[in-house]
Amino acid sequence: MSDRPATPLLDRVNVPADLRSLSDAALAQLAEELRAETVSAVSVTGGHLGSSLGVVELTVALHAVFDTPRDKLIWDVGHQCYPHKILTGRRDRIRTLRQEGGLSGFTKRAESEYDPFGAAHSSTSISAALGFTMGRDLGMDTGDAIAVIGDGSISAGMAYEAMNNAGHEGRRMFVILNDNEMSIAPPVGAMSKYISGLYGSDPFGAVQKLAQGFEAALPGPIRDHARRARQLVTSLPGRQGTLFEELGFGYLGPIDGHDMGQLLSVLRAARVRATGPVLIHVCTVKGKGYAPAEQSDDKYHGVAKFNVATGEQAKSRPNAPAYTKVFGQTLTEEAARDPRIVGVTAAMPSGTGLDIMQKRFPGRVFDVGIAEQHAVTFAAGMAASGLKPFCAIYSSFLQRGYDQVVHDVALQSLPVRFAIDRAGLVGADGPTHCGAFDIGFMAGLPNMVVMAAGDEAELVHMVATAAAHDDGPIAFRYPRGEGEGMAMPERGTVLEIGRGRIIEEGTDVALLSFGAHLGETLRAARLMAESGVSVTVADARFAKPLDRALIRQLWRHHKALVTVEQGAMGGFGAMVLHDLAQDGLLDGRAQIRTMTLPDRFIDHASPDAMYADAGLSAVDIAATALQAAGIAPRRAMARL
Amino acid sequence: MSDRPATPLLDRVNVPADLRSLSDAALAQLAEELRAETVSAVSVTGGHLGSSLGVVELTVALHAVFDTPRDKLIWDVGHQCYPHKILTGRRDRIRTLRQEGGLSGFTKRAESEYDPFGAAHSSTSISAALGFTMGRDLGMDTGDAIAVIGDGSISAGMAYEAMNNAGHEGRRMFVILNDNEMSIAPPVGAMSKYISGLYGSDPFGAVQKLAQGFEAALPGPIRDHARRARQLVTSLPGRQGTLFEELGFGYLGPIDGHDMGQLLSVLRAARVRATGPVLIHVCTVKGKGYAPAEQSDDKYHGVAKFNVATGEQAKSRPNAPAYTKVFGQTLTEEAARDPRIVGVTAAMPSGTGLDIMQKRFPGRVFDVGIAEQHAVTFAAGMAASGLKPFCAIYSSFLQRGYDQVVHDVALQSLPVRFAIDRAGLVGADGPTHCGAFDIGFMAGLPNMVVMAAGDEAELVHMVATAAAHDDGPIAFRYPRGEGEGMAMPERGTVLEIGRGRIIEEGTDVALLSFGAHLGETLRAARLMAESGVSVTVADARFAKPLDRALIRQLWRHHKALVTVEQGAMGGFGAMVLHDLAQDGLLDGRAQIRTMTLPDRFIDHASPDAMYADAGLSAVDIAATALQAAGIAPRRAMARL
Repeated sequence: MSDRPATPLLDRVNVPADLRSLSDAALAQLAEELRAETVSAVSVTGGHLGSSLGVVELTVALHAVFDTPRDKLIWDVGHQCYPHKILTGRRDRIRTLRQEGGLSGFTKRAESEYDPFGAAHSSTSISAALGFTMGRDLGMDTGDAIAVIGDGSISAGMAYEAMNNAGHEGRRMFVILNDNEMSIAPPVGAMSKYISGLYGSDPFGAVQKLAQGFEAALPGPIRDHARRARQLVTSLPGRQGTLFEELGFGYLGPIDGHDMGQLLSVLRAARVRATGPVLIHVCTVKGKGYAPAEQSDDKYHGVAKFNVATGEQAKSRPNAPAYTKVFGQTLTEEAARDPRIVGVTAAMPSGTGLDIMQKRFPGRVFDVGIAEQHAVTFAAGMAASGLKPFCAIYSSFLQRGYDQVVHDVALQSLPVRFAIDRAGLVGADGPTHCGAFDIGFMAGLPNMVVMAAGDEAELVHMVATAAAHDDGPIAFRYPRGEGEGMAMPERGTVLEIGRGRIIEEGTDVALLSFGAHLGETLRAARLMAESGVSVTVADARFAKPLDRALIRQLWRHHKALVTVEQGAMGGFGAMVLHDLAQDGLLDGRAQIRTMTLPDRFIDHASPDAMYADAGLSAVDIAATALQAAGIAPRRAMARL
Repeated sequence: MSDRPATPLLDRVNVPADLRSLSDAALAQLAEELRAETVSAVSVTGGHLGSSLGVVELTVALHAVFDTPRDKLIWDVGHQCYPHKILTGRRDRIRTLRQEGGLSGFTKRAESEYDPFGAAHSSTSISAALGFTMGRDLGMDTGDAIAVIGDGSISAGMAYEAMNNAGHEGRRMFVILNDNEMSIAPPVGAMSKYISGLYGSDPFGAVQKLAQGFEAALPGPIRDHARRARQLVTSLPGRQGTLFEELGFGYLGPIDGHDMGQLLSVLRAARVRATGPVLIHVCTVKGKGYAPAEQSDDKYHGVAKFNVATGEQAKSRPNAPAYTKVFGQTLTEEAARDPRIVGVTAAMPSGTGLDIMQKRFPGRVFDVGIAEQHAVTFAAGMAASGLKPFCAIYSSFLQRGYDQVVHDVALQSLPVRFAIDRAGLVGADGPTHCGAFDIGFMAGLPNMVVMAAGDEAELVHMVATAAAHDDGPIAFRYPRGEGEGMAMPERGTVLEIGRGRIIEEGTDVALLSFGAHLGETLRAARLMAESGVSVTVADARFAKPLDRALIRQLWRHHKALVTVEQGAMGGFGAMVLHDLAQDGLLDGRAQIRTMTLPDRFIDHASPDAMYADAGLSAVDIAATALQAAGIAPRRAMARL
């Protein structure tokens, strides 16, 4: 903490209004200080460094030109917001980023009036900005709306829907395309400067035509650069294509996103003159200005704590393989045995572990971009053709493809395999990435088989089970992070559908776990055993179909039954209750409790802390079980 | 039935292969017979006549040119499939369309091998076709994939995602853009004919360039027509814009979709020569060839039974106002009192009743197109600006915006009002439109208030309640169709959040209804009363927050409690069970049953028949309640 950078200008900025009295040169200087402060802060917290460094100048320029917080500045995804947080009254807490009780790693309405619309899932910003714009035009007390969206996020169907609608409405609003896929070459910068200089005295239409004419008149190589830049908004084939102008937006750019002068002049001109929706195309470099980030392949997209001088990141030594890696490796082995297995990911090949299979079978893994709706139905089509698709999507992102799961997969009973990573609470990414709802929204669907892995060895079996299950759709969920350190099977065993397993046999109370809280459930059993309570622990493995025989066995031979899951109400426990009620088994003798995530969103912290906050620690489980069984909790749990 | 048209050629066609030996002239003749047969069939069943009539020639041409069922023909939405069903072995059952036990009104895998991918929600066809294409290229035994998609459906984000991916993959596949927004003018037809004639001898690229050159050389008015046609695939601003060429597709067209010669030559040429993804732009007229349909404003999009000679549709006289209309009128009245109320619909202004408000307040109702993801977040943005958005989306279509409901609305607790129409079983539209899952997927979300209207008067109160509730999101569900014929309140009363009501008081068993099955629940109570059983009937009104006091009161003072809802497991009943288990109230004395939709999809029929199939008739409810209460069912229910 002693090696904090000198930031004389930044020290005088408490709120964005303070920027508006500074000269352009001072703003450029301020940006440098802001960059140094961002590097320093993230070095002690870890986080999304690369994207934040890419927008340092843009952040300063936007707050200097627009009237935030009356004007609504909406960062798409929100992980690039660290400089924004430093400038908007949160500098004193910036070294608590992503820590328990500290600042969120994303924008968050509850945190600041300068975060008018929180985010963490991509491609929502233009829709939200159009909403604020409509509010302004219908008399609400709000200014202009500005969405800042990356070139990846803008490829999603949702962003297309929003642009379509915004172009149709034709209302004054601003979309900043933060284009960091291309490093801006000097000729393009030169052209942008030329355009920027002209811009102040020209109406939009004329400038656009001018830009095109200017481009045509350039000599070959420079023209190629300029064209390449313009392609992003006009006619790039393939996944990166964005199509603003065709959708009715005015287009300005490309602008060098690290040239404060250009940024300020273009933003000022746009602010003064815009009458309809305007796209401002800003080219930035991810990791800009911090050499270790710029030189890294992933531009320090997400980093651990690191040494500012060397860029060296702190390494945590994992005790057990991560679930994601177990999935990726197991699927690759299954794919080697069965040529019909293919993988689908929506822009997360490494996040889902599908990159492992991709390396070995590049023609059989499909990254469809940020496009979960398409990903699911595309997989359904492949399944209908006879292939065995594994559609690997995080729990919270699968919400984006829910109708497709219902309408295209479940209703047609097509054998799509859903690998649902990041199920349950996820730690530093917080509630936006929380995989709380998938058990309920999947288990409610006819034809669907729903599994959850009790540990990483179980995940191996479930991948094998899914590969073998060709009668209809099947899903398996597993958490973020490391496994339990189990001995790993040589090869997965195909599980019997709808059959759970008893882990430990006892006589007093039964704990029935569904999924990765099995370890914590076993710890709860141990706590109770130490107090002389005899506990059965079972792993349900399936939320659908339920192992009705196992449930009845547990039910009949214990004083109480407690279900445990890493998910919201309406999931596994609800299915068990429905089942027992259906058969009249609750009548007259029921001691049952369902332990789920509570009815509130849980703030970011370590997963263990989050589960404790959620009331799902081993102590909580033990206490609930004892209370249900009528075993005096105080005596039995004295040691807790 | 005696006035069936003469169809000598059609009578010889049993499967599409029979078409392939016919001359082009005979195919044109066959199309006429197919049209007459379609009109005749729909006149006795009702259904989607207009869109089916628009694709008669296209249907014949596709089956004549492509090798169905080995080639996979995928109709987007699927409601234009009646001629396709007639040609693919289902002519003998075509007069059972949409009837109980009869053919589905949509494509359906279970019905025919000629329906390789069922549909009913829009914009899925390109994703599915790409899936089949990948199957073909990875060695599955399948031919080419052809998606037929309308100009409305292709504007959805999902279709954009699919085109993006298909263009990127660059594999041979066919997308037929069925463009029925514009009537094709003779000059365009002439140009298309010219292109079609040339096409047989030209590779794709040359033809495309030629088309452009040809267009430029045309005289003014003709050129305008041609340009207008091309705009749909190149650069149309606003909501209708589609962008195939930019996404890497070859483009052919526009083609007159009612000129069999043009269709056949273009499809044949495309089939022989395509190496990558190809768009074939076909212009058709909705309702084509049947004068009453062509002259109707809605082109007979969905019709009741009608008289073929006059076009006059059978009118059913409703006994009570439809829920949809009650919603639309009530919202309009609320909007007149509160200028902050706005409406959002995703391409369903009349289906949702928002057209009523739109007529009075055109600037406050936003139709965003087929774009549920955007619709929800756009509404969230408006809510954040201080407006009071009512987002009116059918239950099954809200699945398309689920992540946005979770991430943008619930997590931020923004006061978006969700008006969820078509909740529960919907009748002739069948399982694809079934609103089964919304109770569970909404009630699981923190911050969300979830209501359901017990009758149409309740809906009035719930609209008022939603308008007044500004603390967070609120949803209310109601079914398709007519209400119960209740006396309607002058103005809605704001309900206390989380408070249900007792409708009838009794002593033996308690029936707790959530939503529009209240009428059926009251009928069940009447049946039981006739056998001397004293029944309490309550209307929960809220699935979230639950009326815990009411539930406890019912629980304590009756032998059994039965919950009733028009939704899947994991919904209202599950929440009641969780709640009782949580407090240990099930312990030792529980007689509880949860009546939900069963764990299977219910085929189309009348809603009453579907609910009987689902085990949710008054008799089912009464029998379940008596069994739970331990009242001898045979004696008590002797009269049933």
